[in-house]
Amino acid sequence: MDKKSEEGITAKKDENFSEWYQQLILKSGLADYSDVSGCMILRPLSYAIWEKIKELCDIEFKPIGIRNCYFPLFIPEKAFAKEKEHVKGFTPEVAWVTQAGNTKLNERLAIRPTSEAIMYESYSKWIRSWRDLPLQLNQWNNVVRWEFNNPVPFFRTREFLWNEGHTAFATEKEALAEGKKIREAYESVVEECMALPGIYGRKTNKEKFAGAVFSEKIHYMLPNGRVIEGPCFHHDGQNFAKAYNIKFLNKEGKEDYVWQNTFAISTRMLGTMFAMHSDDKGLILPPNLSENKIVIVPILFDKTKEKVLKESEKIAKELSEFNPIFDCREEFSPGWKYNQWELRGIPIRIEIGPKDIENKSVVVVKRTDSKKQFIKIKDLKEKIPAILEEIQIELFNKAKKLLDSSQKKTENKKELIKYIKEKYMVMVPLCGAEKCEDVLKADTEGAKTLFIDPKNTSIKGKKCIICGKPAIYWVYTGKTY
Amino acid sequence: MDKKSEEGITAKKDENFSEWYQQLILKSGLADYSDVSGCMILRPLSYAIWEKIKELCDIEFKPIGIRNCYFPLFIPEKAFAKEKEHVKGFTPEVAWVTQAGNTKLNERLAIRPTSEAIMYESYSKWIRSWRDLPLQLNQWNNVVRWEFNNPVPFFRTREFLWNEGHTAFATEKEALAEGKKIREAYESVVEECMALPGIYGRKTNKEKFAGAVFSEKIHYMLPNGRVIEGPCFHHDGQNFAKAYNIKFLNKEGKEDYVWQNTFAISTRMLGTMFAMHSDDKGLILPPNLSENKIVIVPILFDKTKEKVLKESEKIAKELSEFNPIFDCREEFSPGWKYNQWELRGIPIRIEIGPKDIENKSVVVVKRTDSKKQFIKIKDLKEKIPAILEEIQIELFNKAKKLLDSSQKKTENKKELIKYIKEKYMVMVPLCGAEKCEDVLKADTEGAKTLFIDPKNTSIKGKKCIICGKPAIYWVYTGKTY
Repeated sequence: MDKKSEEGITAKKDENFSEWYQQLILKSGLADYSDVSGCMILRPLSYAIWEKIKELCDIEFKPIGIRNCYFPLFIPEKAFAKEKEHVKGFTPEVAWVTQAGNTKLNERLAIRPTSEAIMYESYSKWIRSWRDLPLQLNQWNNVVRWEFNNPVPFFRTREFLWNEGHTAFATEKEALAEGKKIREAYESVVEECMALPGIYGRKTNKEKFAGAVFSEKIHYMLPNGRVIEGPCFHHDGQNFAKAYNIKFLNKEGKEDYVWQNTFAISTRMLGTMFAMHSDDKGLILPPNLSENKIVIVPILFDKTKEKVLKESEKIAKELSEFNPIFDCREEFSPGWKYNQWELRGIPIRIEIGPKDIENKSVVVVKRTDSKKQFIKIKDLKEKIPAILEEIQIELFNKAKKLLDSSQKKTENKKELIKYIKEKYMVMVPLCGAEKCEDVLKADTEGAKTLFIDPKNTSIKGKKCIICGKPAIYWVYTGKTY
Repeated sequence: MDKKSEEGITAKKDENFSEWYQQLILKSGLADYSDVSGCMILRPLSYAIWEKIKELCDIEFKPIGIRNCYFPLFIPEKAFAKEKEHVKGFTPEVAWVTQAGNTKLNERLAIRPTSEAIMYESYSKWIRSWRDLPLQLNQWNNVVRWEFNNPVPFFRTREFLWNEGHTAFATEKEALAEGKKIREAYESVVEECMALPGIYGRKTNKEKFAGAVFSEKIHYMLPNGRVIEGPCFHHDGQNFAKAYNIKFLNKEGKEDYVWQNTFAISTRMLGTMFAMHSDDKGLILPPNLSENKIVIVPILFDKTKEKVLKESEKIAKELSEFNPIFDCREEFSPGWKYNQWELRGIPIRIEIGPKDIENKSVVVVKRTDSKKQFIKIKDLKEKIPAILEEIQIELFNKAKKLLDSSQKKTENKKELIKYIKEKYMVMVPLCGAEKCEDVLKADTEGAKTLFIDPKNTSIKGKKCIICGKPAIYWVYTGKTY
């Protein structure tokens, strides 16, 4: 343990969220800063969770027909520039390689901010006929977007890890059908494993992905009133197919452009999960994603030490399916250990002292509420799964309550500004003009449109909250990371 | 299937190895070139094998205590330059980021050719006392080494995938003990799964890793007489610890530098495996690594089509544990399909025609020798594992035979030059001077020292094959990729 992680968190989540979050990330040992500004180190505690998320997504992706592959990190400037909206969207944040060894390169190479440009050059070569379709490829890789805003671990980093799925179909219908499955795949992972409820919704034209026909994301509300844009799905229609010349002979022998999708989940979701569930004592991890579900702390006194250690070890072995940490270090007090494992987010703590052993029971403490319960040793193995499940559900429900209580609806601009200041997501009527979204952002000091009302609430007769012209939809707005 | 992969390989492995290898890689659909010279696309067929190798290594690494993590892609020039041998060794091949968006960076950023520099900055911060040791971290990531030689898929590419383990211990003894475990871990994966026998041996000082105390690698002999340097282990002693100031308080309360190791396996081993086992018909994959172990091809005639399809599908279901491909496409002939799946390396083909069904048997064909055998349908499930095992052993034995028959020993320089021309690995006595290794390389037109004789054959009274001074060891020499 390094010295820093031995100290507890001194900031309060309710009072100073951003200081609390920084301390949480560093002191629990999730991540650390590096010498490159904006680039973060994922330490084993967070990286193991990322590996688990990859595994879970792959299990969902496989039956959809998606296969993993790897494309180069570098994209030649020429290839990058082919889809105009796309290049416009990404160029301000691209990191460029211009030298190798002592040689100046003839053409600058972009470090991928996303891989459409390099993948679609190959798709254009590989796809000839309907027999080559669908082509459903996915990468788990690192990408670089050189943001100039202040970095925030997991939420805003210049390099991050993600999946990028890029698929091509013979028909629009098939492409859209895949979209439904992708949404279900992501929702299953984020809801069931990460315990994160969100709202799936379509972006306005202004906020859609550079080059897409439409974009959809899952949106999360953090306790500090910031909305996080999570897993995303973009339907590209034939936009990229035309830019990169991805044509095929259909069953009727006619040439056509393919229909494409793109989808992603990134390490940003780790930050969302850590920030959502954790508390002033430190990290709280959903049991479904915690590598170690239990920590066992024996209470050692000179006279009974041997007996307690022996019994504790026996219990640790019996509970091996929960991958318990058996913390029998003698140089630290039980209290110190409680603090440390609370900081690191282990879902269940088991305390075992000499008296407990006499009573053939142990003390079981849930990380979420610190409540103690005595459980007979013989019942432990049977009762632990229910306690873990209880924690998992508690975390989901707490986040759901926050999400549900963070939404407002108004047609009045003053009220909108007030709600945004009070850290709500606010549903407002809009006319669809991009300019009105700019004005809304300026007037609210930074709120942007998040997604179009998925419930399709009637907009008949409503006026745009900004310009007063007839509104075409209700749109959620809010401040994001 | 793209058009290209439908064509078979036209070059012969024995006659024109390098043309054969290029065609193998492209036509079997393993990989493709990209628009960035020297950077390769790993298509699903090869990437799935890489994922499997990662998984197998992780299973080996875990009990050693190694944990996965992720460090940034970028290394600031200052950090990179701290260990002098290291920076000298890598600088000629470093790709540099100098711009981001429209901004020129104040300090160039190296794209990691290996991550010592950035990881050890953190180790220096994280490690305080013996309690923080050992620190055994590993990354699975992409690295860039901008070689100016001709690229060869998998063997010499400017970007490649690998693992890089970087560990720190309180004592030299513990560090060396880890080395033994790492060697066993890699050998288990390459021998048992990739069917690749090699020779584990220590490098001469000249050929060791830049910054290491000593380097050891596993060496493979390809059919074209080129030696491949595979998984490697470097013991760094306290070299990097001193350069990066990685100190700790030992149990006696004294300050000391940590002892370090580094180890890696890369996608180069995929190329080794493809080149070693495959033949003029295409790819041969060791069954232990082939995602689909069987392809089922029904022989379809108008009258019996329905019956054959139904029976074949039933068999496919029964054999589901072998993840069979059921190729029931009617637009291709059985012969065309045989060729295609041979090209793509499926270990076992099952042919099912109307007569076979009458006889309640099928034709089973091994990819390695194309021998046909009739097997009763009811016995298939039981017999398949033995056939797969047979193929796995055949491949290993064939490679072992090549390795064993490719070694010569001589004390005579003319003979050395002749043997190298004849594509042998040659064991020769050397005096240990780096200059003699340079002369050896020049005189043999490119052979380098590979490893010091692991059997420690007596060197008493022998003279250096180059300078004639007393020799200190026998060293294997040969040409590498």
